[in-house]
Amino acid sequence: MSEIKQNKLKLYDSLSREKRVFEPLKSPHVGLYVCGPTVYGDAHLGHARPGIAFDIVFRYLKHLGYKVRYVRNITDVGHLENDADHGEDKIAKKARLEELEPMEIAQFYTDRYMDSMDALNVQRPSIQPRASGHIIEQMEMVSKILDSGYAYESKGSVYFDVKKYNEKHNYGKLSGRNIEDVRENTRSLDGQDEKRDGVDFAIWKNASPEHIMRWNSPWGSGFPGWHMECSAMSSKYLGNEFDIHGGGMDLKFPHHESEIAQSVAANCCEPAKYWMHNNMVTIDGQKMGKSLNNFITLDEFFSGNHNFLEQAYEPMTIRFFILQAHYRSTVDFSNEALIAASKGYDKLMKAAETLAELKSSDKSDYDVKAWANKCYAAMDDDFNTPILIAHLFDVVKAINSIKVGKMSITADDLELLKAQFNIFVFEILGFKASEKSNNSANMSGSLIDMLLKMRHQAKMNKDWATADDIRNQLTDLGVAIKDTKDGAEWEL
Amino acid sequence: MSEIKQNKLKLYDSLSREKRVFEPLKSPHVGLYVCGPTVYGDAHLGHARPGIAFDIVFRYLKHLGYKVRYVRNITDVGHLENDADHGEDKIAKKARLEELEPMEIAQFYTDRYMDSMDALNVQRPSIQPRASGHIIEQMEMVSKILDSGYAYESKGSVYFDVKKYNEKHNYGKLSGRNIEDVRENTRSLDGQDEKRDGVDFAIWKNASPEHIMRWNSPWGSGFPGWHMECSAMSSKYLGNEFDIHGGGMDLKFPHHESEIAQSVAANCCEPAKYWMHNNMVTIDGQKMGKSLNNFITLDEFFSGNHNFLEQAYEPMTIRFFILQAHYRSTVDFSNEALIAASKGYDKLMKAAETLAELKSSDKSDYDVKAWANKCYAAMDDDFNTPILIAHLFDVVKAINSIKVGKMSITADDLELLKAQFNIFVFEILGFKASEKSNNSANMSGSLIDMLLKMRHQAKMNKDWATADDIRNQLTDLGVAIKDTKDGAEWEL
Repeated sequence: MSEIKQNKLKLYDSLSREKRVFEPLKSPHVGLYVCGPTVYGDAHLGHARPGIAFDIVFRYLKHLGYKVRYVRNITDVGHLENDADHGEDKIAKKARLEELEPMEIAQFYTDRYMDSMDALNVQRPSIQPRASGHIIEQMEMVSKILDSGYAYESKGSVYFDVKKYNEKHNYGKLSGRNIEDVRENTRSLDGQDEKRDGVDFAIWKNASPEHIMRWNSPWGSGFPGWHMECSAMSSKYLGNEFDIHGGGMDLKFPHHESEIAQSVAANCCEPAKYWMHNNMVTIDGQKMGKSLNNFITLDEFFSGNHNFLEQAYEPMTIRFFILQAHYRSTVDFSNEALIAASKGYDKLMKAAETLAELKSSDKSDYDVKAWANKCYAAMDDDFNTPILIAHLFDVVKAINSIKVGKMSITADDLELLKAQFNIFVFEILGFKASEKSNNSANMSGSLIDMLLKMRHQAKMNKDWATADDIRNQLTDLGVAIKDTKDGAEWEL
Repeated sequence: MSEIKQNKLKLYDSLSREKRVFEPLKSPHVGLYVCGPTVYGDAHLGHARPGIAFDIVFRYLKHLGYKVRYVRNITDVGHLENDADHGEDKIAKKARLEELEPMEIAQFYTDRYMDSMDALNVQRPSIQPRASGHIIEQMEMVSKILDSGYAYESKGSVYFDVKKYNEKHNYGKLSGRNIEDVRENTRSLDGQDEKRDGVDFAIWKNASPEHIMRWNSPWGSGFPGWHMECSAMSSKYLGNEFDIHGGGMDLKFPHHESEIAQSVAANCCEPAKYWMHNNMVTIDGQKMGKSLNNFITLDEFFSGNHNFLEQAYEPMTIRFFILQAHYRSTVDFSNEALIAASKGYDKLMKAAETLAELKSSDKSDYDVKAWANKCYAAMDDDFNTPILIAHLFDVVKAINSIKVGKMSITADDLELLKAQFNIFVFEILGFKASEKSNNSANMSGSLIDMLLKMRHQAKMNKDWATADDIRNQLTDLGVAIKDTKDGAEWEL
């Protein structure tokens, strides 16, 4: 049997468009920055995707022994409608609608976002900086870009000079966009008269009189451009050059493309050694998102309270559903797929319980080390969770065979299997037994066992009426009884 | 019988030192600002006190129909050791000890503080602004104070000129301190050479070279004085004049005294119409606090894992324990008092269950309206929760008497009693049935009822062995059986 040993972790770098071996800049420290939510509405399935995808990255890197500082921002200012340079601030608009202070909206939806992530067992990042809390840092970066000559002031706003940047660098290298095409598409938009070129983007915006979220700056009263916060906050907490920058694919352009340009202009270096992008959640083939108004919030999934949903889904079902796909593939929403995920997840959790009670024997029919190696290989191949889950179901079959005596396992192998199974299922994939089963298991489980013993006794006494009565009452309570040759088993 | 009508709410204003009728500046809107935690360690019982005290204010004002914007800050920068103007930043010191970025410490303990408050069922404030996120607002206020002539620059720091302020105003009016006494006590402290007078306090501090948390300002690289954040953030989110400013009594001097002076100097008005201060939690007669290192964290209470604790205490026991005292009285920690609180709380929750099942009759022996009026009168008298709780136990006696047929109640009165009891217990006092009882109640309760019916049947059949066996097994599971003339009752 082979030893368990780890291959080199490889990850797909969206910038070089290839899988690269992961080598941190300052091992064992790893800096990870991921774009977080704009807090003006409830988190939906589309938000769960990056939350969970980068939770896996965070968990696995920590499992490998790295000390990870994970920064995920909260966008509470500067993100305008249609991701544009003009128009209303998304949060201020919501505030006006509900007659609240914008920061009250931001606080409310930040709290709710955290609750949803907690429910999905997404570990909390090391730092969750708010954009509105880092205005000075953003103004300082704007000044640096002006000093370097890659930006110009216009009517109280400051714009990044893409044409000038492109003389020496390549705006478009991450997204693969051609600047001419971008220019074509922006020419007709409102407010372009302040810019020298339609492709230029705001790094500081002059605030119109009715704009509430504003700060005094050397360029007048205004607020930072949306792309600026991630550049300023990532460099503040992780340094000018850090290891991994992550986010949704839809953020490649213009957000991440602009972040690269800003960092190069202000700090003379690209911010991240590796760029990682998760793919989208789709519904009927379209990206699920707030802009398209085709989203289902996480709370709606948990309660089942939405027209598209046939039932409520546990947070762990959602997590399992998302991890059944590789993070770079799309995940298409459907009730069928979610119901299948729920069943698969239950099967996995049941196997975890069965595993805890397995008895060892003097020989093994299952190569536990080879299995564990395959599991690590899946994770080392760009965090391939669907392959890892497939390997887990392979061992679930073995666990169930060992339980009924069709296969056997030595004490050493059993110990290793328990340890590695728990590492993959709970530590790395971040699943957890549901509250429901946890809490009831203790008390209700003992009570049901007690009733089944009494039923057994009644049968021994040929008191069929009592035996049937116990069975019927338990069935009414949702406890399914299965008689096996080793006695009765039950399931909720 | 009298109608339920509310008296005018009176609250004790610490500044005028009298109970005053509460009249908001812009009814129905109420602005409430409360000093939150310095996030460099786990929340302890001393933090639970203001959390819960002002949660009651927040809940009761909302119950009265006010639209309350509740702001509670997170101090993540500028709070130096010993609450002084010199020394190390509390958070940066902790960071150095654990080799983390200061903001990582602040995030970690902010998250844990929120979790503890959630466990205590403390409602989340409308806005929880971070001091580090409002440096611009603090610098702007420092500039205003300099412009008004009430501050001076010295070696890169800016100090508030208390002597000058006292020519027209009264620094000491809130705390009752005499400036001469304060001057006596500060003269010998380190670093006083930058100040014109020992009583002056920093509103901006020059950062020493090793100080990590720093921002560029017109006075050099530094950070705001600790008192500045509350002045800047309260005026940003509630206006220059708002309704209630709250906090612990220990913050009266120098913190709140300085806030008043800063607001008067910068905005020409005192910040709050009413000042409310909660008293301390004591342990062996001393204030429980991080500085004295005699604290027990909330997590330690919840787990029972501390030398001083004889057992674990549920979050609701802690809440009940704190609300049994008026917020302006001290609360002395002892296991005896907590165990008594736990029993009292269980009795209240049991009465809530009994109340739900009461049957009405054609006459009432209990004056529900008079009772409800007394409950409101207690709350209207400066949020007197211990008196309210005493009234609740009066009605608990009545509920239990009605249950056993010793008293009776009409359908209308029963409806009113249920509504008002739930309002006082759950909405205003913010208690909740424990998770444990909630979750198990459904399944385990039904199973236990089933077993008790079988035991009853066994007794009818004179099958004493089976009856005893069921009783013994249930006892082993922690289910206590009590035989009454109406059948068996059980309790976990």
